[in-house]
Amino acid sequence: MPSEKPHTPLLDRVAGPSDLRQMPDRDLARLAQELRSEVISAVSETGGHLGSSLGVVELTVAIHAVFSTPMDKLIWDVGHQCYPHKILTGRRDRIRTLRQKDGLSGFTKRSESPYDPFGAAHSSTSISAALGFAVGRDMGQATGDAIAVIGDGSISAGMAYEAMNNAGHEGRRLFVILNDNEMSIAPPVGAMSSYLSRLYANEPLARMASLAEGFEAAMPAPMREGAKRARQLVTGLTGSGTLFEELGFEYVGPIDGHDMSQLLPVLRAARTRATGPVLIHCCTVKGKGYAPAETSADKYHGVAKFDVATGAQNKSSGGTPSYTSIFGQSLTEEAARDPDIVAVTAAMPSGTGLDVMAARFPARVFDVGIAEQHAVTFAAGMAASGLKPFCAIYSTFLQRGYDQVVHDVALQGLPVRFAIDRAGLVGADGATHAGAFDIGYLSSLPGFTVMAAADEAELKHMVATAAAHDAGPIAFRYPRGSGMGVAIPERGQVLKIGKGRVLREGTDVAILSYGAHLAECIEAVDLLEREGLSVTLADARFAKPLDIELVMQLAEKHRALITVEQGAEGGFGSIVMHALAREGAFDRGLAMRNVCLPDRFIDQASPADMYADAGMTAADIAATARAASERTARVVPLSLAK
Amino acid sequence: MPSEKPHTPLLDRVAGPSDLRQMPDRDLARLAQELRSEVISAVSETGGHLGSSLGVVELTVAIHAVFSTPMDKLIWDVGHQCYPHKILTGRRDRIRTLRQKDGLSGFTKRSESPYDPFGAAHSSTSISAALGFAVGRDMGQATGDAIAVIGDGSISAGMAYEAMNNAGHEGRRLFVILNDNEMSIAPPVGAMSSYLSRLYANEPLARMASLAEGFEAAMPAPMREGAKRARQLVTGLTGSGTLFEELGFEYVGPIDGHDMSQLLPVLRAARTRATGPVLIHCCTVKGKGYAPAETSADKYHGVAKFDVATGAQNKSSGGTPSYTSIFGQSLTEEAARDPDIVAVTAAMPSGTGLDVMAARFPARVFDVGIAEQHAVTFAAGMAASGLKPFCAIYSTFLQRGYDQVVHDVALQGLPVRFAIDRAGLVGADGATHAGAFDIGYLSSLPGFTVMAAADEAELKHMVATAAAHDAGPIAFRYPRGSGMGVAIPERGQVLKIGKGRVLREGTDVAILSYGAHLAECIEAVDLLEREGLSVTLADARFAKPLDIELVMQLAEKHRALITVEQGAEGGFGSIVMHALAREGAFDRGLAMRNVCLPDRFIDQASPADMYADAGMTAADIAATARAASERTARVVPLSLAK
Repeated sequence: MPSEKPHTPLLDRVAGPSDLRQMPDRDLARLAQELRSEVISAVSETGGHLGSSLGVVELTVAIHAVFSTPMDKLIWDVGHQCYPHKILTGRRDRIRTLRQKDGLSGFTKRSESPYDPFGAAHSSTSISAALGFAVGRDMGQATGDAIAVIGDGSISAGMAYEAMNNAGHEGRRLFVILNDNEMSIAPPVGAMSSYLSRLYANEPLARMASLAEGFEAAMPAPMREGAKRARQLVTGLTGSGTLFEELGFEYVGPIDGHDMSQLLPVLRAARTRATGPVLIHCCTVKGKGYAPAETSADKYHGVAKFDVATGAQNKSSGGTPSYTSIFGQSLTEEAARDPDIVAVTAAMPSGTGLDVMAARFPARVFDVGIAEQHAVTFAAGMAASGLKPFCAIYSTFLQRGYDQVVHDVALQGLPVRFAIDRAGLVGADGATHAGAFDIGYLSSLPGFTVMAAADEAELKHMVATAAAHDAGPIAFRYPRGSGMGVAIPERGQVLKIGKGRVLREGTDVAILSYGAHLAECIEAVDLLEREGLSVTLADARFAKPLDIELVMQLAEKHRALITVEQGAEGGFGSIVMHALAREGAFDRGLAMRNVCLPDRFIDQASPADMYADAGMTAADIAATARAASERTARVVPLSLAK
Repeated sequence: MPSEKPHTPLLDRVAGPSDLRQMPDRDLARLAQELRSEVISAVSETGGHLGSSLGVVELTVAIHAVFSTPMDKLIWDVGHQCYPHKILTGRRDRIRTLRQKDGLSGFTKRSESPYDPFGAAHSSTSISAALGFAVGRDMGQATGDAIAVIGDGSISAGMAYEAMNNAGHEGRRLFVILNDNEMSIAPPVGAMSSYLSRLYANEPLARMASLAEGFEAAMPAPMREGAKRARQLVTGLTGSGTLFEELGFEYVGPIDGHDMSQLLPVLRAARTRATGPVLIHCCTVKGKGYAPAETSADKYHGVAKFDVATGAQNKSSGGTPSYTSIFGQSLTEEAARDPDIVAVTAAMPSGTGLDVMAARFPARVFDVGIAEQHAVTFAAGMAASGLKPFCAIYSTFLQRGYDQVVHDVALQGLPVRFAIDRAGLVGADGATHAGAFDIGYLSSLPGFTVMAAADEAELKHMVATAAAHDAGPIAFRYPRGSGMGVAIPERGQVLKIGKGRVLREGTDVAILSYGAHLAECIEAVDLLEREGLSVTLADARFAKPLDIELVMQLAEKHRALITVEQGAEGGFGSIVMHALAREGAFDRGLAMRNVCLPDRFIDQASPADMYADAGMTAADIAATARAASERTARVVPLSLAK
């Protein structure tokens, strides 16, 4: 049901941002309306991060109209909000390929356009990168001003604070635009969020000491009314510095981020007069200008394809529950049995499925905000106190708390349970969100128990296993999306630590699967057996401790051994080979092969297409096993050397 | 020259902290003096982190006198300052074994004492952990209050900010004691540091709204004089909230952290009346009470054994320059030739050797404070602008910026140069500072070039190679301590990317070394050749891209192949085995072995003793090679299957 394309006479005349700089201001406001319609129309066909993009339409137009992009470097934090930016920067003709195979990325991406000087997807990186560009400019590189646009959720992360702390100290000219919509993916949490609310609650603080001359007079009336959403009283702020000023920034705001008559003069004044770092506080509304988005609870943060007239989304028809929901449900059941179980999320209560547990046990689920470092060590502290924390963080985001996993959890042997969602390739979010490295970076840590779920029933068992495991840290990974539709047991079973399971017994070739690629392995076995090969198939369940007995059996009784995992080299296959080397299993010949992610980043597509791109289909596995079995040598013991 | 033991009549009566709670206040001040003498005396024999410990002597006594440790959980951030704490908590008899083999750890450590509820070594973790304990207490675990003691350098890190942001939001009773000595390892940098200076510059802000009743009246006069060091004027702060108050904390201070008549009443009042999170701002002097420390530039942050009377340290007699100094010198030379070279350190200008470059090119070296996440992405931004950034971070601390390495550097293929000091085992700092995981966690990233220096001349070549490498990210690792004494070339040579070198050619066994364990490999070769084995020795130089041609040659022409690396499983050996599996090199038999760190954490000792503990001596390598060569099988091609 492709909706009728919107009428966009002004936008049709825009080939690039320089065209905006020729337009009278009144046209820019109209252009923004047309741009909004185009975004709604495009995302209705592709799905994507609609709410964030609608919230920054005016801001996008104003920045490109005032600054000299791409010489000036505009850096969107996270990048969820970059669709209007892509439309204005020469990518309108491809905007309806967003997040699809061979299409535009859903985030900013350096390889896509010179208007994307620094790619994003993970949050809170923009100020650091912008400061890097500012240094480059000051050291004579061919680059202009640096502008970071960052949301109120993202600016709460430690990394953004580190960057502001450093930028305030450096004192270089730099623009940070705080896009404050009181909403990241979930409602924001934390003291910083309350602080921001107080900032615009009372009277406008608009000021910029060094820009002061005639500045306030130039402001239109609405500016003096400040942002519309006033809630709490500001206490003790009058006449004092904002937190940003304490950190060395000039502070301007709050201003209405949908009002061109505020945005344009403020940005122009800042651009003309700033000598150091400036923070411009814009209040915006997520989903702005599209009623179904504005009125929905999540502001259409991420949507499927939808009908523009009604806002109705083409959600998949349900059917098989997702791994995430099985996790949320299983953990809630364990929590009902054990009052010591608590859970931690870093701003992803719904994405991780912890919202299910929070609904039933609100005091036992902690949303710490975008703060993975803190999340991990906070969980370690709870574990040290005797609680049983589950720390639920996507594979790609757990990278942000890696040192805390090493130093606070593994070194102390504390029983933190890591629930690692989005393991492997994830589809439309592409390479930035792939969970490719966790098997390796966790398994190298002494004392860690590392599991992967082959299907959703296994996931339920692993939740039970983790809940019961008090001997040290334990992690279990599972992929994005629907399970395989297997029957879900009434209750999770506590697995024997370090033991895998044999699913099929054969004599020629052994396939040892780790995690959710088991389905492809089963298919590969069928292909091979149709060709007359006799195949053993096992599911390792544990990367660590490895089931050495099982692995040695597979090595000794078969001509070839193939490991299969949804992760990069250095993960499960490595662990198996280290064990085999230690045991001397290669000494007399073994056609060892590893099927894993190749040594390149895989662009977005459906997960199945991404795995095909990666050379990891059932046919690929079968081909690897077949070729290996054909290469096998007969083994004759050598008279020992010496 | 063991100095005479100090006279400590009060301290001699202290078996544990509960004894402090029986003492009159006037004795506590005297006890602190005795404790200080004991710390000086002990560290003069062992070496260690003297300055930090001397700065918190009174604070340590006061906390243990007021709070009910170990039921109340006292968490020292970083742990450099824990020596007086160890003396008071039952470890006085072992304090002269600090940082030695089988001795006390130089940091807090859970396995050492119930008074160490949460170990440390890396900075800025204490507030997160303390909040975890506070939740445990509120949920019925057997734990009392939680007290984090954190320095002004550590509280500037993003992780501490994340924790305060969350703690302020949670509103639970929690004590954070800011130990503000204006000095971490190097003088602190960043806007937060200036902010703290302003806080105690003007008039004492002492307040704690909810504790107010009678509180100020109870304060002794000196308290109202505030801290002694006044520098800048506080502007606009009067009557407004401090930054900590904005984040939801009650704020008390600043108080003189060496004055028991301030410390005891403030801590007692806080303990009695706090209902939420409280920040107590103590000003202290690093090295306090020992003239040689107070007057030295680094405040005796880390010292060798020394003479108590004069403060003269037993520094090693120089001789072979350290890897660190070779790096600093080499980079400075490259920077002199190329004005685009810049460098970034996270609060370690001297530890990384970047102080050498900063002395010559101060505007091109950036100390961003304890902020590894920001450091990496800031470097990525500079690289994107066209500069050539060297990001110098110890292996163990680069774990704190891992996601930024993945997401901002590797995914975008930006040419950031990572100089990874302290790779492998590091000696007295023990397991928390081991650089064990970097080979694996970097080599799994597509597009990364990963090198390790076998000696200091190689390091110089690798600095030159990294400077010349604009094609993508590149890293080189090197160990702590002195080089091997090889001749240093006048100028570093740009190495051929992905090519190793053969050092000795033989026929029976091949040893493939990666990095600074080459010396042990050479020794192992000598041992083996004396036994009649003919050995090939190669230095891989690159873990990635791997020199496959070299590796295949070694595999095909020898009965056994041994990889050797100063790192955990999942690193270089894994990369070699993955390549060999892909090439089918195991199919016909190869006695493959990996000499690497075992799957456990190695406690402090000399690096040589630690490697012996790890089973990585020359004799161990020789034994592994010998055993492998004896197991080798003759290979006879099998008639192909099917």
